[in-house]
Amino acid sequence: MSSGVPQGFRLAGVYCGVKRNTSKLDLSLVISDRPAVAAGVYTQNRVFAAPVALDRARTPAANIRAVVINSGNANACTGDRGMRDTEKMAAAAAKTCGAKESEALVLSTGIIGAFLPMEKILAGIDQAAAELGASEDHLVSAARGMLTTDTTHKLAGRELKLSGRTIRIAGMAKGAAMIGPNMATMLGLVLTDAPLEVETAQQLLSEIVDATFNCISVDGHMSTNDTVLLLANGAAGGEPLKGEDLAKFRVALLATCSELARSIPADGEGATHLIMLDVEGCATDDAARTIARTVANSALVKTAIAGADPNWGRVVSAAGYAGIEFDPAGVNLSINGYSLYERGAPVEFDAEAVSKAIRDNRDTLIVLTFSEGSQGVRFWTTDLTAEYVRLNADYHT
Amino acid sequence: MSSGVPQGFRLAGVYCGVKRNTSKLDLSLVISDRPAVAAGVYTQNRVFAAPVALDRARTPAANIRAVVINSGNANACTGDRGMRDTEKMAAAAAKTCGAKESEALVLSTGIIGAFLPMEKILAGIDQAAAELGASEDHLVSAARGMLTTDTTHKLAGRELKLSGRTIRIAGMAKGAAMIGPNMATMLGLVLTDAPLEVETAQQLLSEIVDATFNCISVDGHMSTNDTVLLLANGAAGGEPLKGEDLAKFRVALLATCSELARSIPADGEGATHLIMLDVEGCATDDAARTIARTVANSALVKTAIAGADPNWGRVVSAAGYAGIEFDPAGVNLSINGYSLYERGAPVEFDAEAVSKAIRDNRDTLIVLTFSEGSQGVRFWTTDLTAEYVRLNADYHT
Repeated sequence: MSSGVPQGFRLAGVYCGVKRNTSKLDLSLVISDRPAVAAGVYTQNRVFAAPVALDRARTPAANIRAVVINSGNANACTGDRGMRDTEKMAAAAAKTCGAKESEALVLSTGIIGAFLPMEKILAGIDQAAAELGASEDHLVSAARGMLTTDTTHKLAGRELKLSGRTIRIAGMAKGAAMIGPNMATMLGLVLTDAPLEVETAQQLLSEIVDATFNCISVDGHMSTNDTVLLLANGAAGGEPLKGEDLAKFRVALLATCSELARSIPADGEGATHLIMLDVEGCATDDAARTIARTVANSALVKTAIAGADPNWGRVVSAAGYAGIEFDPAGVNLSINGYSLYERGAPVEFDAEAVSKAIRDNRDTLIVLTFSEGSQGVRFWTTDLTAEYVRLNADYHT
Repeated sequence: MSSGVPQGFRLAGVYCGVKRNTSKLDLSLVISDRPAVAAGVYTQNRVFAAPVALDRARTPAANIRAVVINSGNANACTGDRGMRDTEKMAAAAAKTCGAKESEALVLSTGIIGAFLPMEKILAGIDQAAAELGASEDHLVSAARGMLTTDTTHKLAGRELKLSGRTIRIAGMAKGAAMIGPNMATMLGLVLTDAPLEVETAQQLLSEIVDATFNCISVDGHMSTNDTVLLLANGAAGGEPLKGEDLAKFRVALLATCSELARSIPADGEGATHLIMLDVEGCATDDAARTIARTVANSALVKTAIAGADPNWGRVVSAAGYAGIEFDPAGVNLSINGYSLYERGAPVEFDAEAVSKAIRDNRDTLIVLTFSEGSQGVRFWTTDLTAEYVRLNADYHT
């Protein structure tokens, strides 16, 4: 669901030649007509790309005017030259709107270990600057410019009234699994015309990314470039959001990010099932997340769902090796509403019916509960098919 | 390499009907003619099977006379009745050699969540007792009785002279990946006629399992039943090993367990490569293991090797998200002797030559070094092929 471009932003997506396929777009530019508050959440990978280093140093900020995004080349593992290239990209993007060099951010995704084709990138930035606009088409083009192996662009948005003001949120993302030397980078860029204080924006984004983009798993790899940025330019007018208005805004931002995050595994290459995994009844949020991540990353759980196999043993066993203490006698498991395992032991169930319920639905709901407390988490992942492995192993030959 | 049955042990492997396939064996019995020192190392999974509970309570011990093993049914997630069945198995095994009920241990592997067919098991124990012997054939039969989806039995052994005594070590193992509701249980049983003190045996086994069986990964699942037992009956004579004799014995035991451990991923279903991963230059042993395990469990690293793709990015990125601090500029990587990445950046290499070196060899050597210290670890895993996924997803339909 998109609700149009927030006020004060203009966007464009162009093809500048980073990718070989000329029918794709590979560079996007987003300009805010006024200084925007900017917050960022970045990969925890110890090996991170030049644009991550640049954005991390520049956010949170109150004065960002431009974001430039390229796809096809991640500018990762490129050393000092990669860092200088990222700085040049930022400077070129800032220049298009008369901002200072330091008032721009950069996102890159694609192959790693190769230097950016800077001539093409700089020409692309100028081209994009000439095509900026605020229509739905401009939004879609900008969203397309960040894609790599995604089969479709990913947009979400909300519009809400807060104390008489119309506030818009528009988000775009890219994900999909790794193909080629592409590192399966997950990028997200959320724009809003809401007025936010810098600290509020950063805190909101950190919390919401934790509950959304950090709750998805396609192949378990955290890339060198993963980044989610939030730009809030305040063009809707009024004082920075507080109290009830801020709470309502938070719900809308969470809904936007949740929709974007879910669209990433939903677009997983070669996947035949989108798995929603609810882990409940844990002692802490961290325990719930650790168990959910372990189950969601299990190749054996993922292949079981691909095979429409109600294999409770793989799910329970994966939870058991997550490294979290729990009472085995307090474990319950259901798949697509069928109870398979209760209070630590398997129950009789109609295996054919459950198998059919998995096979006939693209969405699979796994609910795993413990008796340790009241913390829970919702995780999204995909199944693991032979087609996925073929895509990830054979592209090279 | 096998060196015959250690003195004072007799073994048998029979078919008693737990498995459907009557051409396989599914029950093994090992008897020591005198009380043996016994040590055990068990799964860390929070959900563990009845035989694990029984053996964990009974080891380390100085008086074990019998080990009974069944395959085809893991007796896991079977509650109180499962526990009683395991106790009955132990009692029946002990009875065959006139030992006390508490002087026997039990290993089970196979489907989980189903009760053992006790009538068949008890008949199988009597049958095995009637067939006990100490020939190479008896050793092979006992090794076959513990297999599930393994394509071949796994034996290793050493013979050494210590202060005039001839000491034998004979080990058997089963592994292979999960198929069906089988939980990919890894079992190991090592017999020796060396005289060992109880504490020494337990400490030796714990250290050696850490360096061998705990350094392999096929699908990343730690099962409900994983167990390695060491029985030392002292039939070679003399005082418990100490000093230089103990050091030599340790080397031989390490070699035996290393060979057994390596044979498990080497027999991985649908795998086309056996990957040896050396992680060196870490600050601590734990850091090296954590990085090695993360890389070895990465579906993307494993599919890259399946596709003969020298994808340094996937290896470096997997190391980066292991949660261990390191200087990215100190990372080096080679595959099959070709240097791909040095001091934090990719180097020029002949991709076709490296690809060919991967494709043409079943063994793949990945060496990943850091500049944090002097700790390292050697890990074994397999590649991930479409055939593996097919086997694990489609067996059900």
